[in-house]
Formats: sequence, structure tokens, C-alpha cells
Amino acid sequence: MIDKLQNYVSGNWVLGSGLGTVLTDPILGSELVTVDSYNLDIPEAFEFARQRVKPELGSHSFMQRAEMLSQAVKVLQANRDKYFDIATKNSATVKTDSAIDIDGGIYTLNYYAKLSLTNKQYLLDGETTKIGKEYYAKHILTPIDGVALCINAFNFPSWGLWEKVAPAILSGVPVIVKPATVTAWLTHAMLKDVMDAKVLPAGAISLICGSPDGLIEQLRPNDVLSFTGSAETAIQIKSHPNINRSFIRCNLETDSINSALLLPDEFSNDVCLQALCTEVVREMTVKSGQKCTAIRRVLVPANRFEEVVSLIQSQLKKVNVGNPRHDSVTMGGLVSLKQKKYVLEGVDFLCSHARVLFDGRDHRYIDVPGANSSCLGPILLGLPEGKIALEEDAIHQTEVFGPVSTIIAYDNLIQAYQMIKRGQGSLVVSLYGDNIHQLQATALTLANCHGKVHIVSPHCVSTHTGHGNVMPQSIHGGPGRAGGGQELGAERALQFYHQKSVIQAHGTVLEWFQ
Amino acid sequence: MIDKLQNYVSGNWVLGSGLGTVLTDPILGSELVTVDSYNLDIPEAFEFARQRVKPELGSHSFMQRAEMLSQAVKVLQANRDKYFDIATKNSATVKTDSAIDIDGGIYTLNYYAKLSLTNKQYLLDGETTKIGKEYYAKHILTPIDGVALCINAFNFPSWGLWEKVAPAILSGVPVIVKPATVTAWLTHAMLKDVMDAKVLPAGAISLICGSPDGLIEQLRPNDVLSFTGSAETAIQIKSHPNINRSFIRCNLETDSINSALLLPDEFSNDVCLQALCTEVVREMTVKSGQKCTAIRRVLVPANRFEEVVSLIQSQLKKVNVGNPRHDSVTMGGLVSLKQKKYVLEGVDFLCSHARVLFDGRDHRYIDVPGANSSCLGPILLGLPEGKIALEEDAIHQTEVFGPVSTIIAYDNLIQAYQMIKRGQGSLVVSLYGDNIHQLQATALTLANCHGKVHIVSPHCVSTHTGHGNVMPQSIHGGPGRAGGGQELGAERALQFYHQKSVIQAHGTVLEWFQ
Repeated sequence: MIDKLQNYVSGNWVLGSGLGTVLTDPILGSELVTVDSYNLDIPEAFEFARQRVKPELGSHSFMQRAEMLSQAVKVLQANRDKYFDIATKNSATVKTDSAIDIDGGIYTLNYYAKLSLTNKQYLLDGETTKIGKEYYAKHILTPIDGVALCINAFNFPSWGLWEKVAPAILSGVPVIVKPATVTAWLTHAMLKDVMDAKVLPAGAISLICGSPDGLIEQLRPNDVLSFTGSAETAIQIKSHPNINRSFIRCNLETDSINSALLLPDEFSNDVCLQALCTEVVREMTVKSGQKCTAIRRVLVPANRFEEVVSLIQSQLKKVNVGNPRHDSVTMGGLVSLKQKKYVLEGVDFLCSHARVLFDGRDHRYIDVPGANSSCLGPILLGLPEGKIALEEDAIHQTEVFGPVSTIIAYDNLIQAYQMIKRGQGSLVVSLYGDNIHQLQATALTLANCHGKVHIVSPHCVSTHTGHGNVMPQSIHGGPGRAGGGQELGAERALQFYHQKSVIQAHGTVLEWFQ
Repeated sequence: MIDKLQNYVSGNWVLGSGLGTVLTDPILGSELVTVDSYNLDIPEAFEFARQRVKPELGSHSFMQRAEMLSQAVKVLQANRDKYFDIATKNSATVKTDSAIDIDGGIYTLNYYAKLSLTNKQYLLDGETTKIGKEYYAKHILTPIDGVALCINAFNFPSWGLWEKVAPAILSGVPVIVKPATVTAWLTHAMLKDVMDAKVLPAGAISLICGSPDGLIEQLRPNDVLSFTGSAETAIQIKSHPNINRSFIRCNLETDSINSALLLPDEFSNDVCLQALCTEVVREMTVKSGQKCTAIRRVLVPANRFEEVVSLIQSQLKKVNVGNPRHDSVTMGGLVSLKQKKYVLEGVDFLCSHARVLFDGRDHRYIDVPGANSSCLGPILLGLPEGKIALEEDAIHQTEVFGPVSTIIAYDNLIQAYQMIKRGQGSLVVSLYGDNIHQLQATALTLANCHGKVHIVSPHCVSTHTGHGNVMPQSIHGGPGRAGGGQELGAERALQFYHQKSVIQAHGTVLEWFQ
């Protein structure tokens, strides 16, 4: 008999009263836990957060709440091994991939716990401005008068949790977390440890492991909704009548067809080309390419196309795909058989628009018992002609959320820019070149359709932070079909959980606000 | 035969090919102009803005675009009298009220023209941060890769136009303006003068005078939509499938049940009480209360209720309502007979929830020829019991967009806060008191449900900038049912027309961005 995960609402751990969904090890096929949120009192959970938790969190200063987060970090660090075990079983990730989620989540939480903030109940925004005779305006940020509903994606049950929770709690805003059902186990384990350790006020973070039904209906004016997931689900959520009717502030992170761009010959050398190839292979294989920031399109000068392809092919051949418990395995499986099916369908679709240059579907998988695992080797596609590639919107606008990338040849930089912009807005583009001026000019040209421009020059081929890594110091989010959201970016993350207001007053009254 | 207003699309002035809507003088009943946008080529208009105007605007620096705005200011100032004439006829406003719209618009435009900005093509956001070994992150803002659709309300055909256009053009973003049909004439006249003077690139601002049909459909990822108007229309717009499907960034300014709060006796004196009454009368009568920032709820300590009512009544008696052309008239008419009908229906509704303390429906109107004008005297309602008032959501959540306010008694400050928050988020609250500490504490408590807290202490009863005046130095917009938007606030207004991105690079590459 497998365990059934409890939900945490109104400060209590409670079981759903339905049959629930059984989570399965996608490599071994064994049953893990049951997830069920049927018949929970959702309205009461929101009411508890508003009436009981909000005043308690709000009575503390930013620094006191930061100290709570520090305590949570300690609890998580003490239980780290357990989380890795869950990730191996539930997410089929190798240890280094699990670390990106687990250690990355704890690192981000700790980063916010250590952020230097005021001991007041508000943040300042800009300088005092004179607007009349001895009359002044000052802008401040105060925590919102509501709660935050955070809906997360399946690929980061830890990092996705903490990168949202940290700035919300720091802002004194209670959080209701809805993880993706398929990987809710890790989110559950971490929150169970933190809440049972009583390092946060009871109910500061609520957890609905299963169905999201009835959550959005509870949102009221001044609440906020933060979502990470597919563009399709994001559109559904934003179309919910209550989102518009109650003027809910939303932050969305969605699908994004990110690019890596090797500058033309005159602006790049072999070191840059090699750095690009290394990064593409890393992004295709880490977490089996199940990352919203992963490189989906690789743009290279037409004359370097073959060279890039052959270098990437030779590196992909060395990737050992299989059971993440096996020492020689460097790439585990996809999150589920269902996800593998989606990815294979997506690959079939892309194959009618591009050539297959490396076919991971033929891979032999290491230490995988049955024929029916979620393992899938990396799949490299290619479009060797710039003129044709420019018109292939299927490649520019389809995200296949797995170990899949397409190498695209371009004839000149203008064409490369056009192709990148056909992605309609992405989270990140990385640039590879050795001409500083050209890197700067390209960054400036591509900035407005990306949340991040990541530049790899020969100075930093081994020290840059990685195309797909999300650093808490930098904002995360992109325009257009990347959802238009913005998370992290140090103190910037707090803005979403605050209301900006201007205070207009005589100097003697206003001088207190500093 | 009256004139038919042209629309300005794809750099050309064109007539609609329909019958159009006839605008009428709401005092005299005479026909003014016809508005018609039937059969315009809207897709071509957007395409022109994207392909032709955007590159031209983008080729200039912020300072060069600021200079264009300065030239536009000169054109407008030279034609000021014409605009006042149109306002009198079309909006039925007295000269001082017309000035708020016309001079306020020109002032705001000029404020942005004079803003000190960089000569580069991007703005900086915060300091450079170290994120790795000799690897750094810097946040910048670059103009969006799209156009701005601006939909305005009827009450500010000039100010509403320029407060949106100024930051957009300064950001290098072409604007498509859709004024409210009923007062499109003034918007038309001002844009005609500016565009004919060729101080801006042809097509930098497009104008659709009539029906908004087909506009939202044209928006694409990376475009933005800015709207001012009723909450109902805002919800309709946000529910448009293309807004969600194309992830359009929206800025909404909507209905808001703003408050004025007189602090309890121990924190306020007679000077404060008088200042409150003066401000309430001003907000009820200026533009016949047709201002999104107008005071709708006046909260006073129960023991001062009678005193406040009698002072306001005595001042309201002196208000001369009628034909704005007549010298003794201090308050003109509503914008239209239709609007008067809405207001009267709203008053009927509120009357079933509050007492009538001053009934402007009985007013005699000065120099108004027919019986059927849009004139309406101020209407003051009252709720003398705090406990009952607290539960009267009709008063806290209904905006009657005319010369209508309700005086509400409260028993203690906590109750007053609760009542104010029942407005579900407003543009502005003003506070009247002489205890500095109490003013500060109240401002902090109410900030998160308001875009602006306007404080009137005895130091500034005659020098404060006014509860309802929108200063370009201060942000304008409020949370929740005020729409959740943010405009103005000096440079802050430019953010909406920019994309924030992080550039991650080696120090030698990044140092250029400063």
C-alpha cells in the first residue's frame, strides 16, 4: 500500500477524500505515492490565509521574515538526501540534474534570506520630488493586501516552489502553492519538513497537491497569481472570468523557443564555436531538455553549419541515457511516459520541417528493465538553408519540451535576428563571439524580445553561468509568448508582491518616509 | 452641413465611409461634427506603424524624441483658443474645467519633453551585479518591439491623449489612439494640428475617431494596450481572446470609489475639517464630478458629521450650474444627455442606500435654453451611522460618474479603514489631519489599496496640489478595481513601453552598458 500525500490547508495537514492520482517511477514503473485534493475546503483555506496568516506575517519586518527563510534553509539542508531520493524515483533525473532543482531551490531561498533589506514596513522607490510649494511626492512599495496563488510546472518541484515562495514570504504575503500533480511529491516533502519545523507561521504556505479546481475562483482584488507552465495552460488561466472580473495581477512564465547564436566568422573564432556546441549539448541533455530556458534553436553562419553539426553529433554520441541510479548514466528519463509521448509527437511534427541530424530515438538505454521507460536520447534537427529556415515558423514557434534542438543556418546577421524574433518573445538568447562591439550591438538588438541576453566571449567560456541557469540576481521571464512575466532579479522580485503608491504631503509629514 | 472628422491612418487623413455618429452640444442641442471610422484599413494602419514608423522613431535618441514633443507643445499652445472653444461646445465645461484637460494635457506633454534622459538607446535599471568569476549581470530597458494601442475615456480628450502619447513617443513606440467617440473632436483637432505641423514623423500617432471594432484583433506579441474607462469595458477588453492569445501587456485605469478621510478629533482640528469640505466641494463640481480621481466617499468622525454636512451644503448652495458660456456659471453640464441619464439612474440606486443631503436635481440652471440639457447640480448623500455604513457595499462599490458624493460617519479609525478598503482598490485617498504621526500611520495602512495617498495637513491647506489633480511626477493608477495600472510618475511611465532584460557577460563586454 503506497502513501497518500496530505495537503496543507488552514494550517492543517489533510487528506483528500477521493481516489487520487498514482505517481509512478517513469523508469521502473513502480508506484510511488497517491496525490489527492478532493473535497478540501478551499474557500476556508484562502480565508485562513487572509484573516489569520496575513496579519501575523505582516506584523514582522522584512528582516524578521528573512530570518524565517534562513531557518527554512537549514531545515531543507538537513533533509537533502531524502529529496534527492524522491527526485530519482519521481523525476527520473541523474544526481547532477536533481541538484539543479533541489540545491538550486535551496540556494535561491538562501539568496533571498540573505538579501539586505530595510527593517521598515515598506520599500522606497526613487527620490522625493517637489510638486508644489513645500509640497512633495514620494513613491513607496507596501505589501499587497492579499494572498499569492502560485501554480508551478512539473520540471522544477523544488526550485519552482522556492523561487516564488521566497520573495512572497519576504514581502509578508501568504502563499497557496499548487505544484504540478505529476511531481508534487518533492514539493510536499520539502513543505512538510519546513512547516513541521515551525520556522514559519502556521499556514504561511498552503499546499494543494492535486487538482487545481476551485482555486482561481477564490482570488479577490489585490490577490496575485504566479504561474509557470505551458502557454496553452497560461491562456486558459488568464481567460478565467474571475481573473478579469477581480483584476488579478498575474505573472506568467510560459513556453519559449530560446536561441543560441554564433556570430558570423568575422566576429567569432573557433573557441566561440566550441563554446556554443558545449552549451547546446548541455542544454539538450540536462534534465532531458525539460527546462523552460533550454536552447531550442541554434543559429550558426551557413559556412559553419557542417562543422557545428559534426561537433555536436560527436558529443551527443557520448551521452549515456538510462536509469539515473546507474553510475555511468549522464542523462535520465523524461518525467513520465505521457510526456515522452508528447515529445515524440512533437519530434514527428518538427521532422516534417527539418532534417534529423542525430536521432536519440534509436538510443540504447542503460540499466532500464522494461521496454516501456520514459528514456529518450537527444534529438538534433537541422535546417541548413537560411532562406528556407526564415519561413519555417513551425521551428520558430513550436516548443518540444524534451531533449530536442534544431540547428539553423543563416546567411547574414539581419536574417538571424529576424529568425530569432520569429519566436515572438523568449526567456533567453545566448550569444557566442569574440568581437566585443558586435556582441554589444547584437545584445542591444535582441534585448527587447528576451528577458535575458547571455553573452559567451572567449574570456569566459569556462566561467560563464550557463545559458539555461537561472541566477536569482538576474530577472527571469520574457516578453510575448514567454508570458510577459518577471521573477527574481534580487529585490525586483518583491515588486510583484507589493503595491506601488505615491505619498503626496508637506515636507514635515513626508520626511518620515525614508 | 456639419463637418465629418477624418481619421489618421498610415500617415494619411481619411474619411470613414459610413453614416457616422453626430456629436451634439449637450447644453444647446446643436449638432457639432460627425465621427465615423467605417471601412478604414485597420490592418494596414498597424502594418504602417510597425514597418514604417517604428524604425524611424527608433532611429532617434530619447533626447531627439523629447525635442519632437517640445515642438508639439509649441503647436498646441499656438492653437489653444480653438481647443477651449471645442471643449465648451462638446464637453459643456466651464473655462477652468476645460483648462484642466487642455492645459493639463499640454503641461504633461511638456513635462515629458523636458525630462532629462540619456542619449543612448536604452535605460539602465539598477547596478551591475557579480554573478560568477569575472562574470556580471546588468539590467537594461529597451523600447518594445511593437506598437501601443491607447483607448481613452470621454472626460479627458486632451489630457488622456497626451499623458499616454508622451511616454510612448519618448520611448520610440508608435501610438494608435482611439478616443471616446463622444468627445473625439478635441482629440482630433489637437492631433490634426500636431501632425500637419510635421513635428513628428508621419504616422507616429494614428487616430481612429469612431468605432474601435477590429483594433484589438491587430495586436501581436510585444504590442501593448493602454486603457482608461469603466471597469465594465476594461473587463470586456481583457476578455478579448487576442489579448490572452497574444500575451498583450495591458495597462488599465478604471472606475474607482476614491475616499477623503478626516482623522478623528484627537488627530485633527477645524482647519483640517474646513480643508476637507473645500476639497469635497471642488471634487464634486469640477468637470461635474466626471473625473476618475473624484472623491466619492467622504469619511468623517460621527461627532463631526453634522458640522461637515452643513459646511458642504452651504458651499454647494453657492455653485452656479448652467451654460458654460455664461460668466457667472461655475459648473457646466455633463458630457451628454445619455451620461446624465446614467448618473440619475445611479443616484436613484444610491438613494435607496443613503439619505439625500443636498439635491442638485432641483437646481435651477443659468442661461440654459431648453428643458433638456445635460446640466445637473451636485448631489450629496449621507450615511450618518458607522455600523450601518460599514455594510453598505452599494456605497463602497458603486461609482456614479457625475457630481455625486456620499458623506459617511465612522465610529473609530479601524472602522474607517475597513470601509475605505471595501472599495476594493482605488486611485486615490486623501487624508486631513494635524497629527503628523497619525497621518503617516494612516498613509502606510491605506497605501496598499491606493495608487496615491494625498495628505492635507494645516501646513498646506492652501498649497497642496489637490486630491483629484494628477501630477506627472507622481504615478497614476491603483490596485484592484482601479484596474491595477500605473501611468506617469516621471520616468516610471516609460517602463510600460520598454522591455526589461538582463545582460549577462564578462566585465569587458558589459562595461559598455552604462
